[in-house]
Amino acid sequence: MEFQILDDGHVTSAAGWRVATAACEIKYTGRDDLALLVSDLPCTSAAIFTTNKVKAAPVRYDLALMQRSAGILRGLVVNAGNANACTGPDGDAAASAMARAVESQLGLDADTVFVMSTGTIGVPMPVAKIVAGIERAAETLSPANGIAAARAIMTTDTRPKHLALRLTLPSGTPVTLGGMAKGAGMIHPNMATLLAIVTSDVAIAPNVLDAALRRAADLSFNSISIDGDTSTNDTLLLMCNGIAGNSPIDELESADGAAFLAALTQLCRSLAQEVVRDGEGATRFVTISVRGARSHADAKLAAMTIAKSPLVKTALHGADPNWGRVLCALGYSGAELDPERVVLHFGGMKVLEDGLPLSFDEAAASDILNLAEVAIDADLGLSSGEATVWTCDFSAEYVRINAEYRT
Amino acid sequence: MEFQILDDGHVTSAAGWRVATAACEIKYTGRDDLALLVSDLPCTSAAIFTTNKVKAAPVRYDLALMQRSAGILRGLVVNAGNANACTGPDGDAAASAMARAVESQLGLDADTVFVMSTGTIGVPMPVAKIVAGIERAAETLSPANGIAAARAIMTTDTRPKHLALRLTLPSGTPVTLGGMAKGAGMIHPNMATLLAIVTSDVAIAPNVLDAALRRAADLSFNSISIDGDTSTNDTLLLMCNGIAGNSPIDELESADGAAFLAALTQLCRSLAQEVVRDGEGATRFVTISVRGARSHADAKLAAMTIAKSPLVKTALHGADPNWGRVLCALGYSGAELDPERVVLHFGGMKVLEDGLPLSFDEAAASDILNLAEVAIDADLGLSSGEATVWTCDFSAEYVRINAEYRT
Repeated sequence: MEFQILDDGHVTSAAGWRVATAACEIKYTGRDDLALLVSDLPCTSAAIFTTNKVKAAPVRYDLALMQRSAGILRGLVVNAGNANACTGPDGDAAASAMARAVESQLGLDADTVFVMSTGTIGVPMPVAKIVAGIERAAETLSPANGIAAARAIMTTDTRPKHLALRLTLPSGTPVTLGGMAKGAGMIHPNMATLLAIVTSDVAIAPNVLDAALRRAADLSFNSISIDGDTSTNDTLLLMCNGIAGNSPIDELESADGAAFLAALTQLCRSLAQEVVRDGEGATRFVTISVRGARSHADAKLAAMTIAKSPLVKTALHGADPNWGRVLCALGYSGAELDPERVVLHFGGMKVLEDGLPLSFDEAAASDILNLAEVAIDADLGLSSGEATVWTCDFSAEYVRINAEYRT
Repeated sequence: MEFQILDDGHVTSAAGWRVATAACEIKYTGRDDLALLVSDLPCTSAAIFTTNKVKAAPVRYDLALMQRSAGILRGLVVNAGNANACTGPDGDAAASAMARAVESQLGLDADTVFVMSTGTIGVPMPVAKIVAGIERAAETLSPANGIAAARAIMTTDTRPKHLALRLTLPSGTPVTLGGMAKGAGMIHPNMATLLAIVTSDVAIAPNVLDAALRRAADLSFNSISIDGDTSTNDTLLLMCNGIAGNSPIDELESADGAAFLAALTQLCRSLAQEVVRDGEGATRFVTISVRGARSHADAKLAAMTIAKSPLVKTALHGADPNWGRVLCALGYSGAELDPERVVLHFGGMKVLEDGLPLSFDEAAASDILNLAEVAIDADLGLSSGEATVWTCDFSAEYVRINAEYRT
């Protein structure tokens, strides 16, 4: 499958999408902290939300919205600086007011606008400031503001995360996918959040879209870990307005469906990897691949367990080829395992075979691990299940950042 | 239930127990690194092992031994400096040779000696040195060496962990329980290990002993977390020689059974807490209590999830009364939860009620958290399930220790 990666692609790279930003001084000053994203036509949409039982007000709003609207949306409003979580009934009213303000300002039908918030929790939302920002933003909607939007949704991110891909469907129509994301996982002070928005001009049936998003998320945003903490606000939204004019994709197993899914997965994976690379305190980007597992689910469980182990992550920080900690994590992961069949590679160097350590050049292995990008490969030798996940190392800087008193 | 805590009590405080140590230079020099513990009479025994699928050779040996011997043991040999893990068939032979050497040297029946190892993994065991050490140790067995034994099994522990309790059973007989433990959880470099040994002179039926040990472990060693990593060698062993002469305890629900269980739980809990207090890089000892849960299992799941969260642990390091991270951990723990019923206290100060933050004195709360001992209490407001677990904070020092290249 060939995709074209667009130079400086972003969330409004697809046809029929416009975005605007505003500075509302929700928490930050001197920067935009609100983005308003709108499609020229109604969209087929799908969303995936945090599994945390403590859900922020916008998540609760959106869960009900997706039922009421059957996923037919026109746009999204998102703010940074306040997560609107643990804010009680006033928080629910604030989320609703944000959606109503957009619908009213742009003359959209009721229940067509999705809401996202990220930032500090337990602080009342400054609704008047946000509504005023929405009114200003509505005046400047443009396809040219995609990168500004990726900046406006940042909290402690050090850089904006945005991307667009173009592909020609096997049936002949070119379509575009654009996206943006924020948040270094769940590692930020004040419970910051992973938010990701993907837009497209493809025409696609709602149930196919939903299935595609779940498959893509499994291989991207749900395959990263920074510290294992799951936020109250995590949300991934996909909206497709059909403006590309392709014959609507009505099966994921069709040629067009497979091509779209591959592109969507690639886009989500790239954004997810950007989130990991920008992890707080991270000094290495780590790819963990498990193969030979009893199933994909087992492989992913094993890989995510390695990715979450503080002992593995601190060893990676120290460029220590500590195969024992990786084998240990495999052992308690819950995945089916026969230790005597395990083969481990660090950066392509075989360090363990048949469950026994090989004599390898520790200095060379340490050199391999002392790079900005590191790979760990585990072959469980049981069957054909495989999975790849991404994580970062665990540094003293992470502790310093997260131990700082909230200000 | 009243227990007498013995001054400087240890693993041979109960009647009929002797121990000796030896310096074998397995890894360390200038210190003892082997302990040999023997009962004057055969013991009823029970053991709990790591759930890690990667099991060290001594764990594999002991699992089979407990079947062959039906738990009737005379003693234990334990070494520090080499975990005898990931050592293949030679490792199995080494574990067996250690047991055989003790049995032969002391003229014991075959299959009466338990084996434990802790230290570096993936390194062949120096069997000849260890057997020579066993021969020397066999000459110096004495009830007076209990504290020396607790020192001999240390790896990167900063202090020995030992304790003994005396109680008079309701039926009138005084009995003693003694114990020792090592390992700051699973946080040490080279995958160090939690080992704990409890001895007693009580007379007790095997099935009752096994049930008692499982109950006590649930409330002690299985209620602590330092980093969530589970070692390949973790073992808890309980041996009772019956020399106290009480009418054998044949029901856990009897008055004597309940008294013994309470004392065993107290002893295990104190040793487990010592392990947490000695956690690498730890600056605070944290007690996390969850009540009002749907069940004990739910309460423990919630409490252990808080105890493992890097965000909570770094906040505690920074004396940050960050109720949001605790609520977030409750939310993703998997325990049944209605966020709007949750009440949180930090060090007795109420910070959250009905799922909403209270306005509290942040400086005072930070002062409370800036102590060596800290308590977090969560009331889920659902039912009567409760659990208490213990953990430590997560410091930059932990990262530094565990990121150091293995030497």
